[in-house]
Amino acid sequence: MKLKEIAEFLSLDYRGEDLEITALNSLLRANFTELTYCDGEKNIKDVPHTGAGAILIKQEYENLVPKDTKVLISPNPHLSFAFLSKLFAKPLFSNVKEKKQDIAKSAKIMPNVYIGDNVNIGENVVIMAGAYIGDNVSIGDESIIHPNVVIYNDSKIGKKCHLLANCVIGSDGFGYAHNKNGEHYKIYHNGNVILEDYVEIGACATIDRAVFNSTIIKRGTKIDNLVQIGHNCNIGQNCLIIAQTGISGSTELGRSVVMGGQSATSGHLKIGDFSTIAARGGVSKNLGGGRVYGGFPIMLQKDWLRLQAKIALNFKDKD
Amino acid sequence: MKLKEIAEFLSLDYRGEDLEITALNSLLRANFTELTYCDGEKNIKDVPHTGAGAILIKQEYENLVPKDTKVLISPNPHLSFAFLSKLFAKPLFSNVKEKKQDIAKSAKIMPNVYIGDNVNIGENVVIMAGAYIGDNVSIGDESIIHPNVVIYNDSKIGKKCHLLANCVIGSDGFGYAHNKNGEHYKIYHNGNVILEDYVEIGACATIDRAVFNSTIIKRGTKIDNLVQIGHNCNIGQNCLIIAQTGISGSTELGRSVVMGGQSATSGHLKIGDFSTIAARGGVSKNLGGGRVYGGFPIMLQKDWLRLQAKIALNFKDKD
Amino acid sequence: MKLKEIAEFLSLDYRGEDLEITALNSLLRANFTELTYCDGEKNIKDVPHTGAGAILIKQEYENLVPKDTKVLISPNPHLSFAFLSKLFAKPLFSNVKEKKQDIAKSAKIMPNVYIGDNVNIGENVVIMAGAYIGDNVSIGDESIIHPNVVIYNDSKIGKKCHLLANCVIGSDGFGYAHNKNGEHYKIYHNGNVILEDYVEIGACATIDRAVFNSTIIKRGTKIDNLVQIGHNCNIGQNCLIIAQTGISGSTELGRSVVMGGQSATSGHLKIGDFSTIAARGGVSKNLGGGRVYGGFPIMLQKDWLRLQAKIALNFKDKD
Repeated sequence: MKLKEIAEFLSLDYRGEDLEITALNSLLRANFTELTYCDGEKNIKDVPHTGAGAILIKQEYENLVPKDTKVLISPNPHLSFAFLSKLFAKPLFSNVKEKKQDIAKSAKIMPNVYIGDNVNIGENVVIMAGAYIGDNVSIGDESIIHPNVVIYNDSKIGKKCHLLANCVIGSDGFGYAHNKNGEHYKIYHNGNVILEDYVEIGACATIDRAVFNSTIIKRGTKIDNLVQIGHNCNIGQNCLIIAQTGISGSTELGRSVVMGGQSATSGHLKIGDFSTIAARGGVSKNLGGGRVYGGFPIMLQKDWLRLQAKIALNFKDKD
Repeated sequence: MKLKEIAEFLSLDYRGEDLEITALNSLLRANFTELTYCDGEKNIKDVPHTGAGAILIKQEYENLVPKDTKVLISPNPHLSFAFLSKLFAKPLFSNVKEKKQDIAKSAKIMPNVYIGDNVNIGENVVIMAGAYIGDNVSIGDESIIHPNVVIYNDSKIGKKCHLLANCVIGSDGFGYAHNKNGEHYKIYHNGNVILEDYVEIGACATIDRAVFNSTIIKRGTKIDNLVQIGHNCNIGQNCLIIAQTGISGSTELGRSVVMGGQSATSGHLKIGDFSTIAARGGVSKNLGGGRVYGGFPIMLQKDWLRLQAKIALNFKDKD
Repeated sequence: MKLKEIAEFLSLDYRGEDLEITALNSLLRANFTELTYCDGEKNIKDVPHTGAGAILIKQEYENLVPKDTKVLISPNPHLSFAFLSKLFAKPLFSNVKEKKQDIAKSAKIMPNVYIGDNVNIGENVVIMAGAYIGDNVSIGDESIIHPNVVIYNDSKIGKKCHLLANCVIGSDGFGYAHNKNGEHYKIYHNGNVILEDYVEIGACATIDRAVFNSTIIKRGTKIDNLVQIGHNCNIGQNCLIIAQTGISGSTELGRSVVMGGQSATSGHLKIGDFSTIAARGGVSKNLGGGRVYGGFPIMLQKDWLRLQAKIALNFKDKD
């Protein structure tokens, strides 16, 4: 889509040279045919380093934009971007008459399964009744997709994965831009989800797709029932994430991290290798790793236990 | 159904004039052809103001009933009501041979979808594979019902809504009456769910139907994955309710309320306009609105942060 | 399967008498044709009392094994057991050409339902669209299986149960054995789930199957939406478990226990009859019963309320 058409669609003034925009992307990943945006504040430092073909930005930051990047001035770049995300959204499913599917003969497909276009299903894969496999999905050898699982378009499932009943892979993340009246505009998520080999996803767990690029669950990680993994998370190898835990968007877990039941993290955090978060631990800052943390606000679990004991001692027994 | 038949069904003594009862309803909403109930205690104050045709009530409160309302004395009105709720429950699905369906030609219906009787589906609606659309459901223009979503009978879905995979709209609320042996009797929920326009419901989120009348999610409100909304809740316009939050029955949120991840409320509360509840906040009292609250018990978020800092300072460092 | 074949499959040395092994089981339940395992530590006390035909055990504990039980020495018995659990796992569904099904004529089966082999469905049962009924499942009279519910193989559902939309009964529990590199090996769960009569399971709730034997929900217990019940739990009669609660594996609840919303328990606990756990209560020790508990760490709810008031008084108001 031409940059001038985009400007017109967004009712923004643009008089520079035109450019074919092929996709939207983040500040540091966008290339010279892609459009990015900067809302200011926390991302402003990345503007001078963008390689994007064009950028949606507030007027006050225009001078920070590299000279090869074309500038679309918007009073609310995040909102302009939300509008555009719909324009660039892939269809939820294609309407081709003859779907192209590469399904191994050894795969077993039960009844009432929906399989989209351009799907690749490996050797000995089992797809149980009621599952939904969106367009452009690939499923590696020996993986088992349990009943009524939903795998949205573009998801990549590794080998020997187990996806338990009613889990959802690749739903849009919870991202909205807001106008002055407090109305929320959906950001269509054009990234995907990648599950590497030997990943297990529990029943009714939900893994959101990335805005751009991928939400990634690395090799050997096991996720329990009713867990929520937000958009653009990156979960390391061999993690264990126990039931009803919530990982907010863009948070990264290192390898062999254990998250206890009903624990949680804020977004955009880094939790180091070999961290253990005790049940109910609420992580709202980066953690170095290699230790056992607990409580909310988060601290070392041994400190939390000692703290609770002292509180009880000081307050509980005397009246 | 005749009031005398109802009395007989419940093994209650009734010798007054007979009356055709058309439905069950709450004390203040029941009209002269409807039956209501009062358990005593918290609802007793409303008894003199009921316009119900008949009431199930304990003998000790009989004198409070208006003279135009017929009286069925029950030692356990809540239990009697539970029994009756089953009698008045609509069938989960009709068995008509030819279902009446008004589906716009522009709507796209994928395979393996179930659509009930008396369903109305608007222009450009998309219903993805495996979805269940119960009887008497209406879905407004441009809404998208994702794979394996369940919409129970009588739900009303507005325009441009997005219902993500495996969410459930209109399941019975968690309401039971109890006998002296501690056995629980299901209250069949004969109300419904209304989602106004521009509402989004996350994957594996659950919205319970009302006992009577409607659970309402107002225009522009966005609900994340794995959220629970209890029966008879009323969620205002443009709210954001983040993943794994639970709103208990009959609670009302004003407009533009934000509920952080894993937050929760008790039932029968009012949370004022423009309130923000921080992640994990647990609301057990009414909140005025316009401020940021956090912690459990709930307080102002800035107080909670200061409190946690002081606790740590006083207890954590000295041994 | 012969014990010598098992030893060979696990690359373990075994020179004793051979034995036909019919199943895997726990230390105290295994009989003389079954194989069990002991990792040491907490289960070591049960080794002398096992009636198992054979045991996987570390060399250092070999002398504790009864003389009638054959010994397979393993450096990591838990991991050896995980490998074996796959070998003994039942197929997720059978491939018989003609499925044997005993379905009452009065039962109603909606479209797009999958029903496996050797299934027994009672009088007036309703199975709504999109439900999955695995092999060897039985469903008692008058029970209602709502849309898109998944009931895995071998589950036993009592009479007059209600299973609400998208709940999952009998998914594998979250159990793994680990090797020295921190890689997790799935333990295939060969037990099942039993729901007794009058049980209700909420929308998107998940009930995991047992490793051996059964996860049991007793008569009259009601479970709300988005609740997680771990493998091998035993939930007593007439309990009420409110939304988003998590019960960890092998925990036992007595009768008439109430678990408030978002409450939780650790694994392997006993919670006595008539306990009430307030909303958000986190149980990490055994509880005697008959009282109201709350907080995390758990205490009497009245103590928790008093404690919170005192903390606020001491820290909140003075600066």
